[in-house]
Amino acid sequence: MEPRLPRGMRDILPDQMMLRRYVIRTFEEIFEAYGFEPLQTPALELRETLMGKYGPEAEKLIYDARHREGKEELSLRYDLSVPLARVVAMYPNLPKPFKRYQIAPVWRAERPQKGRYREFYQCDADIVGTSSMAADAEIIALIDEALTRLGFRNFVILLNDRKLLTGLGRYSGVPEPLLGSLYRAIDKFDRLGLEGVREEMRRYGIPEEVIERMLELLRIEGENAGILEELTRRMQEAEIPEGLEGLQELRTLLRFLEEMGVAPERYRISFTMVRGLEYYTGPIFETVVTEPKIGSITGGGRYDGLVGLFAKQSVPMTGTSFGIERIIDVIQELGMAPPALPRTPIQVLVTVFDEPRMGASIALTRTFRQAGLHTMLYFEPRRLEAQLRYAHQKGIPFVAILGPDEEAQGMVTVRAMESGEQRTLPPEEAVRWIRNALGGERDGG
Amino acid sequence: MEPRLPRGMRDILPDQMMLRRYVIRTFEEIFEAYGFEPLQTPALELRETLMGKYGPEAEKLIYDARHREGKEELSLRYDLSVPLARVVAMYPNLPKPFKRYQIAPVWRAERPQKGRYREFYQCDADIVGTSSMAADAEIIALIDEALTRLGFRNFVILLNDRKLLTGLGRYSGVPEPLLGSLYRAIDKFDRLGLEGVREEMRRYGIPEEVIERMLELLRIEGENAGILEELTRRMQEAEIPEGLEGLQELRTLLRFLEEMGVAPERYRISFTMVRGLEYYTGPIFETVVTEPKIGSITGGGRYDGLVGLFAKQSVPMTGTSFGIERIIDVIQELGMAPPALPRTPIQVLVTVFDEPRMGASIALTRTFRQAGLHTMLYFEPRRLEAQLRYAHQKGIPFVAILGPDEEAQGMVTVRAMESGEQRTLPPEEAVRWIRNALGGERDGG
Repeated sequence: MEPRLPRGMRDILPDQMMLRRYVIRTFEEIFEAYGFEPLQTPALELRETLMGKYGPEAEKLIYDARHREGKEELSLRYDLSVPLARVVAMYPNLPKPFKRYQIAPVWRAERPQKGRYREFYQCDADIVGTSSMAADAEIIALIDEALTRLGFRNFVILLNDRKLLTGLGRYSGVPEPLLGSLYRAIDKFDRLGLEGVREEMRRYGIPEEVIERMLELLRIEGENAGILEELTRRMQEAEIPEGLEGLQELRTLLRFLEEMGVAPERYRISFTMVRGLEYYTGPIFETVVTEPKIGSITGGGRYDGLVGLFAKQSVPMTGTSFGIERIIDVIQELGMAPPALPRTPIQVLVTVFDEPRMGASIALTRTFRQAGLHTMLYFEPRRLEAQLRYAHQKGIPFVAILGPDEEAQGMVTVRAMESGEQRTLPPEEAVRWIRNALGGERDGG
Repeated sequence: MEPRLPRGMRDILPDQMMLRRYVIRTFEEIFEAYGFEPLQTPALELRETLMGKYGPEAEKLIYDARHREGKEELSLRYDLSVPLARVVAMYPNLPKPFKRYQIAPVWRAERPQKGRYREFYQCDADIVGTSSMAADAEIIALIDEALTRLGFRNFVILLNDRKLLTGLGRYSGVPEPLLGSLYRAIDKFDRLGLEGVREEMRRYGIPEEVIERMLELLRIEGENAGILEELTRRMQEAEIPEGLEGLQELRTLLRFLEEMGVAPERYRISFTMVRGLEYYTGPIFETVVTEPKIGSITGGGRYDGLVGLFAKQSVPMTGTSFGIERIIDVIQELGMAPPALPRTPIQVLVTVFDEPRMGASIALTRTFRQAGLHTMLYFEPRRLEAQLRYAHQKGIPFVAILGPDEEAQGMVTVRAMESGEQRTLPPEEAVRWIRNALGGERDGG
């Protein structure tokens, strides 16, 4: 039988795991610094828990599961937000605000392509149980800090508001059935520019007078506060309360962002940015990396209606998802990982000269481990070159060679694999040399 | 719609996650100290990868999965060993020895009961690509170290060998169809004693002369080396090469265990211990906790045949699985967690006095976070008692209270929740006080 993986699935071998873990741990540390707590939910949910939450197109991608005698209809989770809403509804006594993070796999039967898998990790941080815009602002501060810590430099967090989008729709005067097309068109503004959006709208059959009215809005320029002011003026003139409410939310959000010390170049009001129209209810956020051009790496916003699908009373929620798989790929491709990040957790390989001397190698392995060095015993008395090649292939930084000469003198020959430097030392000095060379940093993450 | 979980599934809320993570991190640290590397495999495998590996009874418990347009038959992994064997077969160029660990969920549709779930974590460490008994010995040293580090004191690792079990079967002279019953009976020796095993064997219809021959063996007592010697004498007399081979493996194993410095009271030859007869090929190990009596918490052994089910050439493997869910439960029930282990990663709650003073609370939150304290802003200007109750409920050790008086003086009132001690200090001194009280230990794990 030929060993194979299902389509769109992958193994992550050890040499890829170190970077992956560094990124995951970095997120965990920042989430906890911000007062988020870990939560674990099962991979399998009841099918009815997931259905009707993501829209019919997305729901086609959900994996169903069953076992021989099971009567329940089960599905593999599609994201981490719906399970969170289920948790919030199931445990009404959870103290609020409830700030949770979860970094865990989800499953979507999308067409596999380079860098896109059917099992992938999501990385979410959400704040449950407060309507305060300070919570939304904190999510944005968190995004800023996490991406900065991971080495991203040129990114901007786009801010909009679902209520403002409703207001814009009304303001445009577009007929109801074309509202979706209007949003689809303006969402392309950053990419296509004014004339591109005009063409899109025409293509969708949006009336010329609506197009003109929207384009006039899209011509508004300026910094964040100025844009809000101008939009407020127009929404006031047109008497559109939802729009004004959205603008008020954004104004409060900007105030909190300033108080939280988020650098102004890190966020920008982008009232053409559209996401999850069925889902979000307040501010929405999306991070775009501008240089290198890798597109969107976070998405989120306020979704005060989701828990209401599971419980009589809804509970306000806001949060973000980090595109952690994309982030890991980018860090890998652009060499953004810390230079000291090793390819393996193994720090020293202890060689085996021959079967009778295995005991000496075992004793040395013990000494190294007791000194806190991550140590591997080679087990097999192969030729020394084979053992050195092994260390080289795996990126193990030090090899401790123990032959008859060393054993006779109570010494060990240590080779630093990268520099080729080699010293014959008593074991405790070998420990000291290796420790110093590793820079006191023991697990590189 | 009522929010529900599937049968046998559970959520792990934040107050349970801290202990869980402490245990997982402890395993990760020890695995890496021993030179094991992390591996990640997908939850979904091809059905054909899993089938025929666990026996028909076990395979009834496997969850199948599918998606609308998928032609592949998929299953959720049942353990971590078969996926490892698939990986070893798929990537023949993985440098060997390959030492990997994996701590990840598996799914089994067993009847749910207290402490038993249908999704649970497995925690495995395996050494691939060497036949050396030093690898088996290292697995045992690893078990000893991991359990000791986690606070277990009274446990013993039982050692046996699959080849010796074959030898015992031949030695007994039992007719082939009753061989399984013979193994089932002797496996109960530790629990039922000599007379109990005699009755079991009679019940299974094992001939009296076989029973006598086996009971005579079971009467062998003594320390490890003595038992091996006596068994060797008898296997030599009876000319049973498999038995002698198994005994030779165990002798080599004992030598390596001594060289690795594993305390002799930690392991015991138990030639009546039976596990995975279809699966294991060499030494087998099982850890029994004697006080408190909680039964077996690790199981493993050498399984040189598994990769051969996926590839032309097999690859030797040995390893162990830690019953991590049981271990977590026991640590919880018996209060074995480190006393400093917090219930939440949050260290400080910053209160909010009223909406206009939110900015001051935000600024203080920033100061604390920049000083490395895991800080949560309460967001809502509720009554102070409600905010204090929140911190108490969640086990947050410090609350930083910021009211008009404190703000006017540029001070903050910090309350240590457990002792009730309260100090009004400038923010930087508050940081110092909290840091000292937390003992420099920042994330307790």
